[in-house]
Amino acid sequence: MIVVMKPDASGTQIETMAQQITSLGLTPQVIRGEHQTVVAALGQERPGLAEALETGEGVEKVLPIMAPYKRASAEVKKDRTVVKALGLEVGGAKVAVIAGPCSVESEEQIVAIARILKGLGATALRGGAFKPRTSPYSFQGHKEKGLQMLAAARAATGLAIVTEVMAPEHVPMVAEYADVLQIGARNMQNYQLLQAVGDSGKPALLKRGMSATIEEFLLAAEYILDRGNPDVILCERGIRTFEDHTRFTLPLATVAYLNEKSHLPVVVDPSHGTGKSSLVASMSKASVAAGADGLIIEVHEDPKRAASDGAQTITPAAFGQLMAQCRRIAEAVDRTM
Amino acid sequence: MIVVMKPDASGTQIETMAQQITSLGLTPQVIRGEHQTVVAALGQERPGLAEALETGEGVEKVLPIMAPYKRASAEVKKDRTVVKALGLEVGGAKVAVIAGPCSVESEEQIVAIARILKGLGATALRGGAFKPRTSPYSFQGHKEKGLQMLAAARAATGLAIVTEVMAPEHVPMVAEYADVLQIGARNMQNYQLLQAVGDSGKPALLKRGMSATIEEFLLAAEYILDRGNPDVILCERGIRTFEDHTRFTLPLATVAYLNEKSHLPVVVDPSHGTGKSSLVASMSKASVAAGADGLIIEVHEDPKRAASDGAQTITPAAFGQLMAQCRRIAEAVDRTM
Amino acid sequence: MIVVMKPDASGTQIETMAQQITSLGLTPQVIRGEHQTVVAALGQERPGLAEALETGEGVEKVLPIMAPYKRASAEVKKDRTVVKALGLEVGGAKVAVIAGPCSVESEEQIVAIARILKGLGATALRGGAFKPRTSPYSFQGHKEKGLQMLAAARAATGLAIVTEVMAPEHVPMVAEYADVLQIGARNMQNYQLLQAVGDSGKPALLKRGMSATIEEFLLAAEYILDRGNPDVILCERGIRTFEDHTRFTLPLATVAYLNEKSHLPVVVDPSHGTGKSSLVASMSKASVAAGADGLIIEVHEDPKRAASDGAQTITPAAFGQLMAQCRRIAEAVDRTM
Amino acid sequence: MIVVMKPDASGTQIETMAQQITSLGLTPQVIRGEHQTVVAALGQERPGLAEALETGEGVEKVLPIMAPYKRASAEVKKDRTVVKALGLEVGGAKVAVIAGPCSVESEEQIVAIARILKGLGATALRGGAFKPRTSPYSFQGHKEKGLQMLAAARAATGLAIVTEVMAPEHVPMVAEYADVLQIGARNMQNYQLLQAVGDSGKPALLKRGMSATIEEFLLAAEYILDRGNPDVILCERGIRTFEDHTRFTLPLATVAYLNEKSHLPVVVDPSHGTGKSSLVASMSKASVAAGADGLIIEVHEDPKRAASDGAQTITPAAFGQLMAQCRRIAEAVDRTM
Repeated sequence: MIVVMKPDASGTQIETMAQQITSLGLTPQVIRGEHQTVVAALGQERPGLAEALETGEGVEKVLPIMAPYKRASAEVKKDRTVVKALGLEVGGAKVAVIAGPCSVESEEQIVAIARILKGLGATALRGGAFKPRTSPYSFQGHKEKGLQMLAAARAATGLAIVTEVMAPEHVPMVAEYADVLQIGARNMQNYQLLQAVGDSGKPALLKRGMSATIEEFLLAAEYILDRGNPDVILCERGIRTFEDHTRFTLPLATVAYLNEKSHLPVVVDPSHGTGKSSLVASMSKASVAAGADGLIIEVHEDPKRAASDGAQTITPAAFGQLMAQCRRIAEAVDRTM
Repeated sequence: MIVVMKPDASGTQIETMAQQITSLGLTPQVIRGEHQTVVAALGQERPGLAEALETGEGVEKVLPIMAPYKRASAEVKKDRTVVKALGLEVGGAKVAVIAGPCSVESEEQIVAIARILKGLGATALRGGAFKPRTSPYSFQGHKEKGLQMLAAARAATGLAIVTEVMAPEHVPMVAEYADVLQIGARNMQNYQLLQAVGDSGKPALLKRGMSATIEEFLLAAEYILDRGNPDVILCERGIRTFEDHTRFTLPLATVAYLNEKSHLPVVVDPSHGTGKSSLVASMSKASVAAGADGLIIEVHEDPKRAASDGAQTITPAAFGQLMAQCRRIAEAVDRTM
Repeated sequence: MIVVMKPDASGTQIETMAQQITSLGLTPQVIRGEHQTVVAALGQERPGLAEALETGEGVEKVLPIMAPYKRASAEVKKDRTVVKALGLEVGGAKVAVIAGPCSVESEEQIVAIARILKGLGATALRGGAFKPRTSPYSFQGHKEKGLQMLAAARAATGLAIVTEVMAPEHVPMVAEYADVLQIGARNMQNYQLLQAVGDSGKPALLKRGMSATIEEFLLAAEYILDRGNPDVILCERGIRTFEDHTRFTLPLATVAYLNEKSHLPVVVDPSHGTGKSSLVASMSKASVAAGADGLIIEVHEDPKRAASDGAQTITPAAFGQLMAQCRRIAEAVDRTM
Repeated sequence: MIVVMKPDASGTQIETMAQQITSLGLTPQVIRGEHQTVVAALGQERPGLAEALETGEGVEKVLPIMAPYKRASAEVKKDRTVVKALGLEVGGAKVAVIAGPCSVESEEQIVAIARILKGLGATALRGGAFKPRTSPYSFQGHKEKGLQMLAAARAATGLAIVTEVMAPEHVPMVAEYADVLQIGARNMQNYQLLQAVGDSGKPALLKRGMSATIEEFLLAAEYILDRGNPDVILCERGIRTFEDHTRFTLPLATVAYLNEKSHLPVVVDPSHGTGKSSLVASMSKASVAAGADGLIIEVHEDPKRAASDGAQTITPAAFGQLMAQCRRIAEAVDRTM
């Protein structure tokens, strides 16, 4: 931790800061510059330390040095994490493809689309039984019945089930049916939910909050890892910016950056990331080229009749083309798909 | 709802759209322009409608006309809502002041600061017993014991207690002690929590999500109102932007805009909104001038030793000055404080 | 400058960094922590230094300590700058009010509105002769004829003229007619223009770029100050964010923050900052309460017929009410208006 | 244009709006809904029309239907534009690669790096002679001498020269030496400069402003096209958002979206778009996969000693690897490189 003192900080203020650092269990080192003095605080940084120091008198700002996440860090764990669930494997040489409708609508629908998607190369099935909706008047999902429909689709195809859980008290129920528990973007900092998923023993797919920094994203993963659950898949799904031609802005540098900083696998959601079906294939290709370990894509037999998210959903035919195109990109980066 | 067809949309596509509108229970009206055709859908708009229509063939975009919130709308309820809890009244002529430490640290601390704040003019006491923290390694609050400490402070001063609830299963417990249930920015779209607070019968203070649009903010309020709980206080606490000199960007036009669109009272949190104690007084004055019904401010006897949020916390002395300054502004806009 | 080395940086890399710092004319000081080593570079920071150091081998990041602007800094010049032009004075006890139409439309119009505004208390007249327009097909202003119309309005009222200059080669011409040269938000980093205005000898009103940080804003002012022109008025006019209910997001914490960091006077433009006439009065009051030295407001006798920006323009009647309300706020912060 | 009237708009207000539409040369059509009335304005939309209509009494909002750009639109010109300059071709089957140092430092340097880059497959040389710098104290470029050095590099290699022009009065001089005139992000709405480049007869590379919408970006291109210059290359270089782990956020959906809406070729700048050399290769691959027609990349023989932008600059060795990797991606999308 580096404490930058104000240019007019007094000798007493500097000395007091050094004492405060000592009292916090770190070792102070005073560096007197021509214009300003800084006090380094040597030792293990920990959350809250910067906050504690920056209220000192004569302090201009406090600059942290170490990243605040630990278990998610590539420095702490050198080998990359591969998350496995049934036939799904995220983080290995093969690019994972999690596909399916936004909402589970009926057993016939979900079984039929699961069969089609499996035939086209999907490695897991997505589908919402609990739906977080902006308006209380929108369709909220079939809940436990939806989970049973997903289980039927798994029985019919062998595909792993990826589905969202929205509240801590639902975790045991959803974990009974699902192979991977998805935490939605709006819940990325719902800490009770993160802890409950951490305790569930099931792999988690954690979506980035729409205005979360990468540090906050990795600290949210840390909440799950800290409960002893090592199986966290990070998912970039787009952030909120001033752009208005897409539903969100999809920043693919996230993929390469997370690959540098963390050992956790990274998937991209080009459906929510763009909000426009015509852009999904291009962004899927770009994601694979950027080094993503997987894709999560909304597919519906008839997007016009989808219970939710129709505008960003593609047809099975479009999905088949996307798979063929992405496979070529995967090969060009020495992976399979 | 206005459906804009692509310039090259065929006659059949336009006709199909008109039929789809009819099948959804609305009345289509086709308007043929020189360059493009648009199809108006007359009748009651509802969530999901735009999504359903924009997947039609030949459709370029769908433009909604009506706001999707209803119970929160100033058009639906003309008289302004005044939320009351003990001596706290938000939405009336008097500007409410909710003040207190970020975290409840001990009974002595909270009772002492409550007495001081009451003496300086605060109308309610804030303090966190459950703390949402970005890192799992930060102090998470005293939980139920913290609630009991708050209750002791109320017993000593008569001040209403405003405190955060973070999970649906904690709502009954928190509601037992608190006078107003605060929903934090990170939980603005935690729908299970909104519904649980809606069911609690206690007034709610709903903080705006840090990347929520005003429409999403009012729809989150709608989740609470829709459960039959009319007592919702809206709280602007800053949004996430590219600005890096403040912790968040505090957009005070929100206050005036919400006063136009909604009957619900609006308070501002200049502590989180700026993240800097030196800016809190100025932004408090500006909030009152902009028409805010209240302020929520972090005050601690010794910000340097606060368990959290020290950098944005002011001292009781500074709070006293702030109150004196804000009172003059309140009078200048024909209110009291 | 603090150079943070990677946890696995070698002794040779640390030594090389120390030598590089010496070769750049600064004094290195190595601080060995438990986990990471940092190298402080003592001496005068200058632009480009951080860039030069962060490419060193084994470097994780470089943390600057000093603000890069100098002449604009409140540390360098302790007394506050007051900019004067005819009867206009910005930065003193009286809050300045620069009002007028977006575009100068005709001599009759501008003389008439100037007379009305003066009567209502405006201290300067704004009006565009050169108009930056997003589309090449929009009205681009009356150019030199527009300047002559403004001069006529000054002759009739004695009000100082504030008008935009868009290109370096126009500076001499605009400076001939105008009392204050306005640099628009889109041109905040048009460095040739900044320098030309710096050379003109006329006071400048510099609008913040819509995605400029405060540091960039003050460095843009530095371009003008560095040419020997001390008369720079800073203008907050709103930034671009995800918000869609206002044209821009108007962050008033800018006012208080600039008052801390710089001696230059600050005015606010609530017309562009909100884009909505119904919000202009509230944001004007809030600006004055936040400590602004002035306001710049679009007023037109018939906003419906304004050649540009009608939606954010207020009528003279509304302006009169706004002045009456703001005067009360100004008194409440011990100023006049 | 669709004018949405307020729910409580009077019959007179609706009639007045219809008359205003007629007086503007369009045909009004009134559509009465259950809750609100909308008035469609049929005919050619034009800039300023929405502004004019939204000030009408009883108007809630105005929804434009047509995109405001014309010459840049894929609807107006169906065949895609290919921009050619010497050996550079942007928009054809071959992905263009414009590479070189941020600043031109000396003739030896630029000739040497040009030879290396040509050998590695670059199709044009970039290098700054006029440098827009945030601080007046940073290196501003060698100006005309720098242009002469670039010309020497062209003479030695045959590579086309792409270099920035910062002011209208420099356009003739820069056009004398350069093959493609670059307009920087900070100048995207410097309309005098756009017009001067439009008049120059030279191809333009137009960088997206860091907070420009796609509509504003295409309207800036329209300023150039409107002067009779058809050769505009659009360049995505990253936008400003809340993200702090990269210098800017690079939204690659821009590429696919522009390919839908415009016939103009699109290149990506992963150097500025990320600000980090370690992310440049990944984002280059992703750009090609997303459908970019070219890349513009900062390469310097010794990034540590680069006069500017060292942190985002890669070495020739890294550039060679990037080319090999991108070629494989190009083949996977049926292009060459």
